[in-house]
Amino acid sequence: MASPAICDRNNRNDGENGSRSMGLCGKVMNKVVEFPIKLKKLGQDDPRRIVHSLKVGLAVLLVSLLYYVQPFYNGLGDTTMWAVITVVVVFEFSVGATLGRGLNRIMATFLAGALGFGVHHLANISGEIGHPILIGIFVFLLAASVTFIRFFPRMKARFDYGLLIFILTFCLISVSGYREEEILEMAHKRVSTILIGAFTAVFVCIFICPVWAGDDLHNSVANNIEKLGSFLEGFGDEYFKVAGNGESNRAHLQGYTSVLNSKQSEETQANFARWEPRHGKFRYRHPWRHYLKIGHLTRQCAYRIETLNGYLNSEIQTPLNIQSNKVQELCMKMSSESGKALKELAWALKTLTVPCAAASSHITKSRAAANNLTSMFRTSSAAAAGVGGDQVRLLDMVPAVTVASLLSDVVAYAEQIEKSIQELASFPHVQFKSAEPKTLQSCNTSSSNVGPHRVITMDRLASLQVQEPHKGIGTKLQRVSSAI
Amino acid sequence: MASPAICDRNNRNDGENGSRSMGLCGKVMNKVVEFPIKLKKLGQDDPRRIVHSLKVGLAVLLVSLLYYVQPFYNGLGDTTMWAVITVVVVFEFSVGATLGRGLNRIMATFLAGALGFGVHHLANISGEIGHPILIGIFVFLLAASVTFIRFFPRMKARFDYGLLIFILTFCLISVSGYREEEILEMAHKRVSTILIGAFTAVFVCIFICPVWAGDDLHNSVANNIEKLGSFLEGFGDEYFKVAGNGESNRAHLQGYTSVLNSKQSEETQANFARWEPRHGKFRYRHPWRHYLKIGHLTRQCAYRIETLNGYLNSEIQTPLNIQSNKVQELCMKMSSESGKALKELAWALKTLTVPCAAASSHITKSRAAANNLTSMFRTSSAAAAGVGGDQVRLLDMVPAVTVASLLSDVVAYAEQIEKSIQELASFPHVQFKSAEPKTLQSCNTSSSNVGPHRVITMDRLASLQVQEPHKGIGTKLQRVSSAI
Repeated sequence: MASPAICDRNNRNDGENGSRSMGLCGKVMNKVVEFPIKLKKLGQDDPRRIVHSLKVGLAVLLVSLLYYVQPFYNGLGDTTMWAVITVVVVFEFSVGATLGRGLNRIMATFLAGALGFGVHHLANISGEIGHPILIGIFVFLLAASVTFIRFFPRMKARFDYGLLIFILTFCLISVSGYREEEILEMAHKRVSTILIGAFTAVFVCIFICPVWAGDDLHNSVANNIEKLGSFLEGFGDEYFKVAGNGESNRAHLQGYTSVLNSKQSEETQANFARWEPRHGKFRYRHPWRHYLKIGHLTRQCAYRIETLNGYLNSEIQTPLNIQSNKVQELCMKMSSESGKALKELAWALKTLTVPCAAASSHITKSRAAANNLTSMFRTSSAAAAGVGGDQVRLLDMVPAVTVASLLSDVVAYAEQIEKSIQELASFPHVQFKSAEPKTLQSCNTSSSNVGPHRVITMDRLASLQVQEPHKGIGTKLQRVSSAI
Repeated sequence: MASPAICDRNNRNDGENGSRSMGLCGKVMNKVVEFPIKLKKLGQDDPRRIVHSLKVGLAVLLVSLLYYVQPFYNGLGDTTMWAVITVVVVFEFSVGATLGRGLNRIMATFLAGALGFGVHHLANISGEIGHPILIGIFVFLLAASVTFIRFFPRMKARFDYGLLIFILTFCLISVSGYREEEILEMAHKRVSTILIGAFTAVFVCIFICPVWAGDDLHNSVANNIEKLGSFLEGFGDEYFKVAGNGESNRAHLQGYTSVLNSKQSEETQANFARWEPRHGKFRYRHPWRHYLKIGHLTRQCAYRIETLNGYLNSEIQTPLNIQSNKVQELCMKMSSESGKALKELAWALKTLTVPCAAASSHITKSRAAANNLTSMFRTSSAAAAGVGGDQVRLLDMVPAVTVASLLSDVVAYAEQIEKSIQELASFPHVQFKSAEPKTLQSCNTSSSNVGPHRVITMDRLASLQVQEPHKGIGTKLQRVSSAI
């Protein structure tokens, strides 16, 4: 009994080794051939990468000129290297990241330099034996405590680099065996060169094709909403096989998967964006943290869509023989209208326009479809669910009912995404186009009172199944208990 | 119409400013008071943080002794600072991260130093005017191209720091205005001090309470599976209100939410783990990347669980008046058995024991329950679904059917997680306890042939709704078309 498994494992090892030794040359050749193709693709995917690389080259070149301009070099000497080091380590892809690192580096160097100088002075007056002991104690305590502070999530998010440089500079200044006058001169030179380096990096970063982390965050949140919209627009046709050959479309629908894991990149971008000055459409104190809330809602919606996507691969081709035409029509309406609504919302967010008429109308329609479905489910008994009185197997109802239920969740999330974008528009530092109070008010009214499409029922199904996804984003979904 | 909105906005601003100016002192005081409490919590959450901080303090202290040991200081002089810098920037929380940064730094310094020296030599022989021009061209090209290479995801994951140091060292060496003999001496000293710094950091990191990234990854993947298991174990009771007062339990069930966003941290840990030598239960070439596949499946399962969790907040308290006892029993069985299975699998993974009897038996039971439900749904017509012949509203069936359908997905994912852990056990560099070929084989047999619990039907429902979640992880779920 045991031998086949052993053989299998041995064969596998042999096979692996064989292919490894035989194919090594081929693999290396493949990699060499593929390299330029990959390089090209990397640049095509985001041409800003090429610009960024050239900008780094330029900044390093500029700062290395310090070595060749005699007056500078005579003044700064060997410490010129700190300018080069600063440019290389501070220059990041976005303005926010570069500014954050630059400010962290300058402030940390300044503070730690002053503290280090104080400790050095204290150690000097404590005699020859006391000197190393005192310095040792200080270095140990400071390195340990600042390292511990780096574990605070808030500190890590914004000041991690500064804290690192703080430890580094403090150790360099306090430990160094120089005399105090030398230290003062060294500190002066070092701060100057770091300032020169940081300013060079920030200058090149801001004034040559700047990449704003805020813009990236703004666009990425809007694009994520759009991706969900695209899925929902295509889902109905794909699921109910209305379109002819669905295979090609199905791959097209998978764009939403990147939304599932977008949390960390959004948080990083939001932290960078907070360092950025006013630029383009955004004022200085733009509420970047609110984007994280919109992003959270988008991901919650994406989890439901991920579950929905599982039903696309179902082999039950025509599951809806329960009132098929009507249920299919309503599901397709929920899907396509909420998809359109999300696309409208994405567009509104991207262009900073108050989402009003179009988005609200699509949301109203999708909510109306959900309510229609709910009331249909309420009024029909399961026994009467067959088409033309046919008996229906429960099994055939399962996917249809589940899809309807998930779509109902999605509609509720679309409503909440709309609310959170309206909320963004109402922040004092945000300028949404045509954001006059009147428009906003009428917009709010139209999204809570649903107009002629609204059905005379509680939208119990949707309201009951969707948990309150985020505290403080907005009030609970308003329940409409009477119709207009 | 417009005035209330304007007033509202103004009031809001005034209110904000007022509370800001009034509460500033209070806020600062609050922060000062809260700080020690937060510090304590940070240490209690993971005591390794305290140890790490002390280790950093010790490493910096050790390396700063170089300044006080005269023979060293005489030999190294000012370049001693590079040892301090290296310790501060290289010392990371886990061994893998520290080793990765240390090796990156050493190799990059060495390579870039050699290249920089070559360029410097080339520039020197090209005359006084050619020198700065040639150096400028080289610095620009190298900085730009290496910066571009840093955008490659693979390079970014493992060699980002090395590439940064490469640019830095190259610029320092090639640009510096020293004579060649000086450069050689400087390079020698710098490489020595960087080696001393890196070895100090790595030594302290490995030999004093080491934190292995591999262990962290291993435990975090296992814990994530366990969290899903805990949710599923509690879900049935909570949803069907079997337990008395559910409120406290509901908060207890929310542990799974951290799984949803675990992708990036798992990838980072896997990259660090690949730098680590053999330690504890893990050999050198442990298949860390396979953990990412298990993690991916766990997240896919978590997305379904997140959707399920929405139904806990449903106000429909007793939705199951369709064959309530039987459906409820089967759903609870699916939930609790798959929960137990996931917990067993988590334990097996954590202890590196081949998941066999217990896990397989729970999976078999949950699969049997899913199949029972499927065949019940198949054989009953919707008309006969009422308890005791009562008419059932379709609306009341919706949550029950959706929950059953989602649980069925979850069972399928539990099966796949089991398969992927079995697969991990079969890797050549992995030692699972009691992993004799015989045990493995019988284990495989028992998980694909389901034994006496298996029902004589296709498990169509589950198999059709779950998409193939990851290429190459395993073959498609085996479909059992005949029973034993």
